[in-house]
Amino acid sequence: MRFELLQQDDTSRLGKLHFLRGEIQTPVFMPVGTYGTVKTMTPDDLESLGAEIILSNTYHLMIRPGEEVISSHQGLHQFMAWDRPILTDSGGYQIWSLSTKRTINDDFVEFDSPVNGDMIRLTPEIAMRIQKTLGSDIQMVLDECTHYPATKDEAYVSMKRSEKWAEKSFQAYEDLKDDSDSAIFGIIQGGMYSDLRLENLDFLSSIDFDGLAIGGLSVGEPLAERMEVLETLLPQMTQDKPRYLMGLGKPIDIIKAVEVGVDMFDCVIPTRHARNGQIYTHSGVLRIRNAQYTNDIKPFDEQCSCYSCKNFSRSYVRHLFNCNEILGARLATIHNLYFYLGLMENIRDAISKHCFKEFAKSFIENYQQ
Amino acid sequence: MRFELLQQDDTSRLGKLHFLRGEIQTPVFMPVGTYGTVKTMTPDDLESLGAEIILSNTYHLMIRPGEEVISSHQGLHQFMAWDRPILTDSGGYQIWSLSTKRTINDDFVEFDSPVNGDMIRLTPEIAMRIQKTLGSDIQMVLDECTHYPATKDEAYVSMKRSEKWAEKSFQAYEDLKDDSDSAIFGIIQGGMYSDLRLENLDFLSSIDFDGLAIGGLSVGEPLAERMEVLETLLPQMTQDKPRYLMGLGKPIDIIKAVEVGVDMFDCVIPTRHARNGQIYTHSGVLRIRNAQYTNDIKPFDEQCSCYSCKNFSRSYVRHLFNCNEILGARLATIHNLYFYLGLMENIRDAISKHCFKEFAKSFIENYQQ
Repeated sequence: MRFELLQQDDTSRLGKLHFLRGEIQTPVFMPVGTYGTVKTMTPDDLESLGAEIILSNTYHLMIRPGEEVISSHQGLHQFMAWDRPILTDSGGYQIWSLSTKRTINDDFVEFDSPVNGDMIRLTPEIAMRIQKTLGSDIQMVLDECTHYPATKDEAYVSMKRSEKWAEKSFQAYEDLKDDSDSAIFGIIQGGMYSDLRLENLDFLSSIDFDGLAIGGLSVGEPLAERMEVLETLLPQMTQDKPRYLMGLGKPIDIIKAVEVGVDMFDCVIPTRHARNGQIYTHSGVLRIRNAQYTNDIKPFDEQCSCYSCKNFSRSYVRHLFNCNEILGARLATIHNLYFYLGLMENIRDAISKHCFKEFAKSFIENYQQ
Repeated sequence: MRFELLQQDDTSRLGKLHFLRGEIQTPVFMPVGTYGTVKTMTPDDLESLGAEIILSNTYHLMIRPGEEVISSHQGLHQFMAWDRPILTDSGGYQIWSLSTKRTINDDFVEFDSPVNGDMIRLTPEIAMRIQKTLGSDIQMVLDECTHYPATKDEAYVSMKRSEKWAEKSFQAYEDLKDDSDSAIFGIIQGGMYSDLRLENLDFLSSIDFDGLAIGGLSVGEPLAERMEVLETLLPQMTQDKPRYLMGLGKPIDIIKAVEVGVDMFDCVIPTRHARNGQIYTHSGVLRIRNAQYTNDIKPFDEQCSCYSCKNFSRSYVRHLFNCNEILGARLATIHNLYFYLGLMENIRDAISKHCFKEFAKSFIENYQQ
C-alpha cells in the first residue's frame, strides 16, 4: 500500500491509498460486509455505487464459514466476488461486544461462539494468520477494546495489553507477509484519557505500521468526550500515514472527524438503518414506515440521483416495508450507501476547493440529527 | 393486444403477444410479483434476466397498499417502476386459498382480510375496476376456483357461477375500456370433469375474450388427471388466441403442457423455492443448505451463465443462507428465474426448429424430479 497526501484544507486532508486492487480516495467511507456480504448488495451493486473498499469482520468469518472454506476459495475476494480492496478488523471489538463468556490474559483471549457455544481461542498470531487467509488488503492488529466508562487504571491495563498484542501482531504479520501489497494498521486505545491516548500513540508510532486507527470510540461516550480524544490525538499523528476512526458514524460525526484530520471511516449505520427503514437525506433521517408516507409519491430525497430515488416513491418503499418485502431493505440500502458515499465525495470536493469549513457548516445547518 | 401464431411443431406452438408496452414471445413464463415486486428483484434485475411480462395479484394489492395508493401512481407500472406488460389475476383463487371466512353467491363474494380481518366484498365489476386502476395489460375475469376433489355436482354449480361472473366481468371490462391495448382473458373451470370443461369452454368461446386461461389446476390433482383435462381441452381451443395455464409449475409440468399447446405460464416456484434454498439446474433441484455444499467451490450449475453462477460458489451461497443473509435469497432467485426463462427460450428454439419432442425427451431424461 502506498498513501499519498494530496492536499490539506486547514486540518482536513485529501489523499489516496494505492493498492494493486485499486485506488481509494480519502476521506473514505467503507461499507461493512460482516459475513462477506454488504447486506442485500451484490458486488456489482457496490461497484455501481462507487464503493472503493469494504470492511469485513474476522470474528464473524472465523466462526462462519470458517478459515478452511475461505482458504478453499483463495481468500475472501474470490469467496464474495469482490475484487477491490478489503479491510478486515481483527475481532477484538466483537469479542467484547458479542461474546458473553471470555477469558483474557496477555497471551490469548478465549470466548464462546455465539453460533454453537464452542470456546474459541484467539491470539495476535491467530488473528493475523486468519486475516492472511482472508487475503485482506488492510489488516488490523488484535486489540482489546476498553469498555466505557472505564477508570484510568482499567484503561491503562487494557491499553498495555493492546500494546503487547500490537507488537506480536506486527511480528506475526511480517512473518507471514508475501509479495502482496497488503498493509497493517495499529489501533490506538487508552479510553477517554488524553495522556493514555498520547502514550499509546507514542508506543505505536515506534512500530512501522502502514497506518493507525483510533479504536475504543463510538462505545457510548458523548460527542464532547470523543472530540476531545480526537483533538488531542490528531495533531500528534504523523502526516504521512492514513488515520482511520473505527466504527463511526452518523453523517455529522463523520464531518466533525474529517475536520480534525481523519481519513477513513466504517460503520454499519447506513446499511443497518436502511433495513429498519431509516433513510438518510440531506435534511436528516426519514422513517419510511411512518403512516405519513402511505400515499407520498415523492422519492426519498428530491435532490438524490440514486437508483431508488430515480425510480420509486416513498409510498412504494413504505408498502414494501409494510409487506416485509426484501426489496424494501435493498432499495433503502442502495439509497443510504449512495448518500454516504456521495457525502464523502462532497467532503473531498470541498477539501480540494479549500472550502471544507463552509461545506461542513452548510451541511450541518440543513441536517436535522 | 394482438396475438400472432408464428409456428407449430405438432401441437406445441410458437407465438407472440404484441402490446404497446412490449412484445412477449410465447411459450412464456411470467415471474410472480404478488405485492408489486418479484421478491428480491428490482425491475432492472428482471429486465436483465429477460422477463417480458410479470404477473401481479389483485387480491393482495387491493388489501395492501389498496386501490387508492396505486391510483395516485397512475397504476401499478409506475408504482413498481416496471414498464413492460403486467398480467393480473382477479383474486378468485386467493379468496379460496387464503381467506378463512367467505360468503359467496352469484352476485358477490365476501371474505376476511388476512391483514386486519376486515370483511371485503368483491364482485366481477369491482375486480375489473381494480384491474383497470392497476393498469393491467392482461386482466382476468373473476372466477370461483373449484376445490379439489369436488363431486361433479359441486364442480357444475361452481362452474355455472364462474360463467355468470365471466359474462359480468367481460361487460364491466368493456364498460371501463379506454384506448389502451389491454386484453381480457376468460378462465375455464369445471374441475376434473372433461364434459364440464368442454361445456365451459364452449360457453366462454361465445364471449369475445382475447385469450383463455385454464384455471382450477395445480390444486393437488395427480399429473395424469391434469394431463387428461389439458388433452381434452387443448384440441378444442381456438388456434388464434393465446392459452394460459394458471399457476403451473415445475419444469417438467411446463414442458408437458407446452407439448399439448399451452402458451403462457406463471408460478411462484422459481422465486419461492429460491428463498428456501432450492436451486433449479438442468439435472434437477439442488438444496443449497445441505452440508455437502459447505466447501463446494463449483457454481450452482456448471452449464449456467447467470450472474450468480458466473460469480459465486455453492459454498458461498450456502454460507449466505446459513447466516440468513438476504443476498442468498437474491442470488438463488436470479439463478432460478434465469433457469426458468432460459428453459422457455430453449422450448421456443426447439419448436422453431421442429424438434420440440426430442428436446422434451432429452430434458426429462437428464432431469431428476
